[in-house]
Amino acid sequence: MKLETLNDLLVKNMIDLYDAEKQITKALPKMIKTATSEDLRAGFEEHLEQTQNHIIRLEDAFKELGMKAKGKKSEGMKALIDEGKLLMSEKGMEDSVMDAALIMAAQHVEHYEIAAYGTACAHAEALGLDRVFELLNETLEEEEETDEKLSDLAETAVNEAAALESEESEEEE
Amino acid sequence: MKLETLNDLLVKNMIDLYDAEKQITKALPKMIKTATSEDLRAGFEEHLEQTQNHIIRLEDAFKELGMKAKGKKSEGMKALIDEGKLLMSEKGMEDSVMDAALIMAAQHVEHYEIAAYGTACAHAEALGLDRVFELLNETLEEEEETDEKLSDLAETAVNEAAALESEESEEEE
Repeated sequence: MKLETLNDLLVKNMIDLYDAEKQITKALPKMIKTATSEDLRAGFEEHLEQTQNHIIRLEDAFKELGMKAKGKKSEGMKALIDEGKLLMSEKGMEDSVMDAALIMAAQHVEHYEIAAYGTACAHAEALGLDRVFELLNETLEEEEETDEKLSDLAETAVNEAAALESEESEEEE
Repeated sequence: MKLETLNDLLVKNMIDLYDAEKQITKALPKMIKTATSEDLRAGFEEHLEQTQNHIIRLEDAFKELGMKAKGKKSEGMKALIDEGKLLMSEKGMEDSVMDAALIMAAQHVEHYEIAAYGTACAHAEALGLDRVFELLNETLEEEEETDEKLSDLAETAVNEAAALESEESEEEE
């Protein structure tokens, strides 16, 4: 595919995101299973539903550009998801530490998407592609909200994990 | 390395960031060379200096934890930088489109760091590691500022690239 104009750059980004979102729908079920806090599990479940919507919005945006939706392996997203899988395969973590690790992995994924959708929105807007901008911007806003929710959820997990640690060091004394 | 406690998770994150920052110092010179807008070049140059400082802050944070600084290949950062290299190897882009592509790549890098330092700060704070928190938080704030500056710089590049595109389509008519 040629990459010469701003429109090409926007399409390249959407092709990357279309695959990235699909990777996320495949990764989330294991994260839901691994999460121990009920709130975190519910948060991931909600995000899985949203992600399915993000895929539909991308399909609509491709349609606006007169194209059929397509994806090409997003190596950036793959690396982030692989890192999350490695964390989930760790055996020695207490529940709250695993939840903190899951949130860390999820926030990497969210920030990848915030960077990508943020850029795509700026490009669509400059190109006067109003409907494409609207579609991508709706998703961008949801990704930003998800990141904030994860930060809130992190507080509980992280504080529990920290408390556990000070208990252990007291026992050792 | 064992990964059981919140402290282990913090150290793992710092080890990843220590390598990630070094990868960035190696990637930026080519980005500086490729950028055509003087403002963007100056922005990347400033960020290279900041990044060298981020490495020193991480070394200080490791010292606070009684450890020698170490890094382990950050696969997440590697994937993002490789994507940037691919963009820079494209031959058919006008200057403003290449600048927009460079900014897109740089914002992916910044958001990786915002996610990682944001998480690390939350963990250091919960663990009562005040000095480590301070060091990491200073860098976090700089990464957030850099991301905002990139969004501002993007506006010029993206608008120029979009204008170019409408000129071309007028010529074709």
